[in-house]
Amino acid sequence: MKIDACFSPALYPVYEDAESIVVIIDVLRATSAICVAFHNGAERMIPVAKVEEALEYKKQGFLAGAERDAIKIEGFDFGNSPYDYMGDHVKGQTIALTTTNGTQAIEAARNAYKVVIGSFLNIDVLCDWLVKQNRPVLLLCSGWKNKFNLEDSLYAGAVTQEICKRTKEVALGDGCLALQYLYEMAKNDPMKFLNHASHKERLVKLNLKKDIRYCLSPNTAPVIPVLEGKYLVNLKIS
Amino acid sequence: MKIDACFSPALYPVYEDAESIVVIIDVLRATSAICVAFHNGAERMIPVAKVEEALEYKKQGFLAGAERDAIKIEGFDFGNSPYDYMGDHVKGQTIALTTTNGTQAIEAARNAYKVVIGSFLNIDVLCDWLVKQNRPVLLLCSGWKNKFNLEDSLYAGAVTQEICKRTKEVALGDGCLALQYLYEMAKNDPMKFLNHASHKERLVKLNLKKDIRYCLSPNTAPVIPVLEGKYLVNLKIS
Repeated sequence: MKIDACFSPALYPVYEDAESIVVIIDVLRATSAICVAFHNGAERMIPVAKVEEALEYKKQGFLAGAERDAIKIEGFDFGNSPYDYMGDHVKGQTIALTTTNGTQAIEAARNAYKVVIGSFLNIDVLCDWLVKQNRPVLLLCSGWKNKFNLEDSLYAGAVTQEICKRTKEVALGDGCLALQYLYEMAKNDPMKFLNHASHKERLVKLNLKKDIRYCLSPNTAPVIPVLEGKYLVNLKIS
Repeated sequence: MKIDACFSPALYPVYEDAESIVVIIDVLRATSAICVAFHNGAERMIPVAKVEEALEYKKQGFLAGAERDAIKIEGFDFGNSPYDYMGDHVKGQTIALTTTNGTQAIEAARNAYKVVIGSFLNIDVLCDWLVKQNRPVLLLCSGWKNKFNLEDSLYAGAVTQEICKRTKEVALGDGCLALQYLYEMAKNDPMKFLNHASHKERLVKLNLKKDIRYCLSPNTAPVIPVLEGKYLVNLKIS
């Protein structure tokens, strides 16, 4: 089982192949919010790259979330805080979503063999499932505006380590080799580790400490959102 | 003094700015070989992206090196082994060079404020000089065919650490933050650390252990090759 990590949606074409399951990673906060939405009973989500597309869905009567530069866009139902997606108001709903980084990564990988959503909130159920598939895995970090970021790579390191715990039949690409060490350094206190991350500073300025803490909580939303056509749906795990 | 790392020439446009000194990194082996050539008295080098361009220079009577997939191309004077560039035969010469990754990175960054060549062989003199410039620095890892690789990122981590030793006035981008930890894990035995790196395996198959060991030796070619127009020249350090 091959695993590699790609640090930017802009690099995805270099890593793309016809075989790999692609795990989309934007832990602060899009992929965490998506997991929370499905854990709270959302029926479908429609990830879109542009604000205009999300607005179009909203006009058609769908719920819609939109975030740019860590701030919720006015006129939408939600931003990308996981707290926005907790509660009965998402149950059974179809929700369009556009974010600065995460939905761009989904867009980049749209034609992959399979696209699933990863966050600390679903890490165990996701890794169990990935190992069962016995296929190559590409961990696609959304980064920040196509640059490497610390939080997504930290999570990719965590997934690498969790998969290595579950099977010895693993061949790690250089990205995963590096991230394993990174996660090893950080795992006892990831919140502290992220203290100096560029995006973390941005989020702290916006008073999002509570969000960050939640997004680093393992296994609080044990679902696997998977892309089917234009929709994310809740994967039925057998 | 801002420092960031870019893990692929293909990502350079995302990191590009008008201010930064760009350090080109391809430690196994192009940027090590370039340092050795200048340390042995080469007058100029002409880095080119394509084999045909290098061949054209050879036809014009220049010495020329060419490597693809870690192997010297037949008909050229040199490959990208640092050992090819040791000795009096390079003294005073102008040498054209094309390699799988390193010269592609130079090509990508050609219009930067300044482009210099980094390797373990010139790490101290390079870091002393970088700190004196008091400008933003971008560490451009050549990687392997536009993918992240372990050896170039390890070196970028080493440069980050060396600069942080020399000045406290440093703002690290997320890439450098991550690599610092990576280098910290590896520094006592980088040869062992690279044992599992994808490119390292490739080089070991080609019986290049001696090359790798040499390319990891700090400060054995204390020169700073700098790009001036189409030429790399030996920077006169005042």
